Amino acid sequence: MTSDTTRLEKQIQFLLEIDKLKSVYRRTYLIDADRLENTAEHSWHLAILALLLAEHANEPLDISKVVKMVLIHDIVEIDAGDTYFYDMQAAADKAERERAAAQRIFGILPADQALEFRELWEEFESGATPESRFASALDRFIPQLHNFHTRGRTWKEHDVSAERVLARNVTISRGSTALWEWTQALIARAVAEGLLKEKDV
Amino acid sequence: MTSDTTRLEKQIQFLLEIDKLKSVYRRTYLIDADRLENTAEHSWHLAILALLLAEHANEPLDISKVVKMVLIHDIVEIDAGDTYFYDMQAAADKAERERAAAQRIFGILPADQALEFRELWEEFESGATPESRFASALDRFIPQLHNFHTRGRTWKEHDVSAERVLARNVTISRGSTALWEWTQALIARAVAEGLLKEKDV
Repeated sequence: MTSDTTRLEKQIQFLLEIDKLKSVYRRTYLIDADRLENTAEHSWHLAILALLLAEHANEPLDISKVVKMVLIHDIVEIDAGDTYFYDMQAAADKAERERAAAQRIFGILPADQALEFRELWEEFESGATPESRFASALDRFIPQLHNFHTRGRTWKEHDVSAERVLARNVTISRGSTALWEWTQALIARAVAEGLLKEKDV
Repeated sequence: MTSDTTRLEKQIQFLLEIDKLKSVYRRTYLIDADRLENTAEHSWHLAILALLLAEHANEPLDISKVVKMVLIHDIVEIDAGDTYFYDMQAAADKAERERAAAQRIFGILPADQALEFRELWEEFESGATPESRFASALDRFIPQLHNFHTRGRTWKEHDVSAERVLARNVTISRGSTALWEWTQALIARAVAEGLLKEKDV
């Protein structure tokens, strides 16, 4: 067996493993509200957002890096699960659970690729670069569209208020002022249409 | 309304429209065989293949272009549906159905982006460039893994033979000799293990 075959074997093992991301379900519904969205298809959607919305980023950036980042940023959910964005209790040990997941899952790959994916994921988490700030803005922007266009279904199910949505998503503005302005207008419309309550009581 | 807002509106309209790709189901099952795979999550999987397997391409290529290509290549299925790879009758008017779909769906975008996506999709279909040959190889390679690792479920359901699988997928070799060799070995193993019949009768 050549070393290339061993390398391809590890890559294929990883590709089989990450198929599981198609069975990790998020709290958002598809736009047609038929079912909850899974993390794999969400990651695909985000990659298209990156391709299309690059021009709205606040800073010059390498968009192909953003695409890579959003494609792999949620793979850790295979082990760590999807942590609901407004669940502060689950958020407490999220970092630790996800770090262990990254170690195991990226560790299936040949060492150089394991390191590359690991570093991309850590950069996404850090928010320390233009790419990670924009990737994170996209990740926070798209659920607002899903929630609005399903008549606020997830907001209602989890009793979330506009006040909290705005407070938790203000970091969109770090990646894209244009998307943050759009978000604020959408949230205001959601409140006006009774899809989202204004404040926590 | 500024022209930028109009532009963002069109982009968002497109992003909402393509959410429908998450409800287009293919003939392949998830590796855990729980359900059929949809085209959006398949496209995500392909993009990761592109990132990881670039080194196995026959020719030097721009891998970020391959990533873009696989992310958008199946969007036309929203209108045209998934044409089963071994269904020669459906294949007859596939090109026409998909062309009309590309016209409508990419046409939602601002003109420059509509053109860019349209051209990427046409390049993928053409197989005339290193990027399109490799993207197509990936697209044909991954179902073999799914079929093998679900004990040949889709092959059996559609009564496909090894002879036909090899004949229909030989173009993998145009994009990647390494992946084609892997495919041939996998198919031989599938026959040996009784997951796939050898010949059509």
